[in-house]
Amino acid sequence: MRAEVVAVGTELLIGQIVDTNSAWIGEQLALAGIDSTHQVKVGDNVGRIVGVLRAALERADAVVVCGGLGPTHDDVTRDALAEVMGVPLRRDPEALALLESVFAGRNREMPRNNLRQADVPEGATIIPQRLGTAPGLVCPVGEKVVFAVPGVPFEMKEMVERVVLPELRRRSGETSVIRSRTLRTWGFGESRLAEILAPRLEALEAVGAGVPTMAFLASGIEGIKVRLTVKAPDEAAALDALDAEEAQVRALTGPAVFGVDDETMEHAIGELLVGAGLRLAVAESFTGGLIASRVVAVPGASRWFAGGVVAYATEVKHRLLEVPAGDVVSEVAAAAMAEGVRRLLGADVGLATTGVAGPEPQEGKPPGTAFAGIALPGEAGTARALELVGGRARVREIGTITALDALRRRLLARG
Amino acid sequence: MRAEVVAVGTELLIGQIVDTNSAWIGEQLALAGIDSTHQVKVGDNVGRIVGVLRAALERADAVVVCGGLGPTHDDVTRDALAEVMGVPLRRDPEALALLESVFAGRNREMPRNNLRQADVPEGATIIPQRLGTAPGLVCPVGEKVVFAVPGVPFEMKEMVERVVLPELRRRSGETSVIRSRTLRTWGFGESRLAEILAPRLEALEAVGAGVPTMAFLASGIEGIKVRLTVKAPDEAAALDALDAEEAQVRALTGPAVFGVDDETMEHAIGELLVGAGLRLAVAESFTGGLIASRVVAVPGASRWFAGGVVAYATEVKHRLLEVPAGDVVSEVAAAAMAEGVRRLLGADVGLATTGVAGPEPQEGKPPGTAFAGIALPGEAGTARALELVGGRARVREIGTITALDALRRRLLARG
Repeated sequence: MRAEVVAVGTELLIGQIVDTNSAWIGEQLALAGIDSTHQVKVGDNVGRIVGVLRAALERADAVVVCGGLGPTHDDVTRDALAEVMGVPLRRDPEALALLESVFAGRNREMPRNNLRQADVPEGATIIPQRLGTAPGLVCPVGEKVVFAVPGVPFEMKEMVERVVLPELRRRSGETSVIRSRTLRTWGFGESRLAEILAPRLEALEAVGAGVPTMAFLASGIEGIKVRLTVKAPDEAAALDALDAEEAQVRALTGPAVFGVDDETMEHAIGELLVGAGLRLAVAESFTGGLIASRVVAVPGASRWFAGGVVAYATEVKHRLLEVPAGDVVSEVAAAAMAEGVRRLLGADVGLATTGVAGPEPQEGKPPGTAFAGIALPGEAGTARALELVGGRARVREIGTITALDALRRRLLARG
Repeated sequence: MRAEVVAVGTELLIGQIVDTNSAWIGEQLALAGIDSTHQVKVGDNVGRIVGVLRAALERADAVVVCGGLGPTHDDVTRDALAEVMGVPLRRDPEALALLESVFAGRNREMPRNNLRQADVPEGATIIPQRLGTAPGLVCPVGEKVVFAVPGVPFEMKEMVERVVLPELRRRSGETSVIRSRTLRTWGFGESRLAEILAPRLEALEAVGAGVPTMAFLASGIEGIKVRLTVKAPDEAAALDALDAEEAQVRALTGPAVFGVDDETMEHAIGELLVGAGLRLAVAESFTGGLIASRVVAVPGASRWFAGGVVAYATEVKHRLLEVPAGDVVSEVAAAAMAEGVRRLLGADVGLATTGVAGPEPQEGKPPGTAFAGIALPGEAGTARALELVGGRARVREIGTITALDALRRRLLARG
């Protein structure tokens, strides 16, 4: 079973919008075990859309086309589909009734333009909208099929998940399931991680069917992701295989795995702090609020996060956090900042950053020089040097995640 | 003159990476006055890449293909280009010497795999790399041409700007220049802004040639961008036309324009504070460090930013910022926080946020309820309600930019 994605819209070609829809649909197709060899973007032009759809239908069994279903005169995907099917467009009573009910529900009169959204190629069936106005279309072309879905991402995703993927899987006759799990790591470089996991990679490749495949995905400040994907006869067998392989990866990488799937570094720290009944305070210099803003992004962070101080000016470090006189880009200052903010905010644990983000040096130290300070309950603050490379933004971002990881490992070791 | 973009890489088809290269190249082509009708993504497969390149060369005068120039066995763009040109690959001495000098400069031995990057289709010329290892290629195909550039975005951009765009413009025989300017606005919704600028839009369309075109681009928390683009005989004429139209837009929109091109809201605030010789301190509750982290992202922020307090826990607001007893999601608390942080950090200006980010209500107030407090020099703190909609992340982001904009407008009014 092979399917292609076509994205319609002149705004995609001239870079006003980055086409993220195709990547998302491509990922869903791959996870459903459906091959995909080409993806095409084409402007709002009936003739060109027709050409692209015909070429895609020659190569593939199915096509998902997104965009061009709106109410304006340059939304011409419906017209192109009618031409590809060799049928006229006709106004569909069911589509019209659905459109009218959407506008009635919003207490708005339906503009005349929107009537076009009820035009359906003869022989096509509609996919009712649940979130917007444009209905989707299922268009048979001989033994093959074109699915048309809206270009608005959340409308597109809802329709693809609800109708397109199940229908594609039904057509492919596939009954097995494909499941993925992503283990998120921090601390190893990509080549070192590949080296550590090489024995598992070889073992999995030797077995072949029924065990997961393993792929690495370097994700910048999100760390390096290890993605396990398995095809199995049913859900339970898939989960068993993923559980077994996750255990193997964790045994080889130790504490480098900080989360699974959508779990962030902050989420991991929150779990550790809640488990120990502790509250955190942060003091930030060069990261300037990045740590706090990531922490606050976790729903329910108020259970374990008191707040923080952005001690950007040097005198704020000395006066408010009682950092002793001397260099502020130093281990001594980082440890004192962690103790200072813990005391100032009445928290149990303090985390601090101080460093040179650049582009200018500070205290004679080059950009990238940085320290993380950590103060655990009943202990004096300690600090470690972070070695950061890159421009100002990257130094701040890598500093943020590295400091958080240092805290996570200290909390883990504390048990 | 017509050109197409082809992106090579199986990882693009299965959604492991979102193809942002094509959008960027498409934008550059449009700005250079070069039409583009299709963009295609294709996997790492010689036969398919050949098919896609041939189809693109039938439709267009030139093709820019990015990706597949790396050292590994699945980097096959070079092989596909040789087939399209009908010539063999041969190892190019100049390319080889450049590769060797890159590795020598890094004090590393060149892995054997990288030798492949010196293979060049006979009759093609290389584009030397300045940032990575893979050289680009200029491949004549009859009267037409294919430019091959690396898939690594910063390497690709450098090569497209340095070689591909100038060569395309030379081939197109175009001597006029196209220049753009983006005015960044905050405060009006998209339809209201379009209404305000409708007279200008009509006036420009009536004149046609020689005056800028105007496009709106809703950019989420970056506001709504008004993009002016003009084609003119030379640089000076283009800048004159953009200056004149910028003045017209500013006259109609008042203080809504906060920046030009890459200037952020924080940048605008920094300029106002430096001009007045003032230093800022921020107190953040639901924005939790987002304001501080945006401010610190501006190089040289230490001249006008003292620091901040992330007063996430309620008792931190009362104890550290001396917020009076009572509701903390309130105008009273926002104003007191702004005064409190100004005093605590010894700054001249205080900016504060307090609100309910969600998903749970707080003090009986629904998510989205929020207030910004501002304390200007010699004045007591004041506050205004922000009406924020959306999920937790969006409420925090929109709250951040709206609070910053409120401060910008107060500083502007102060003169």
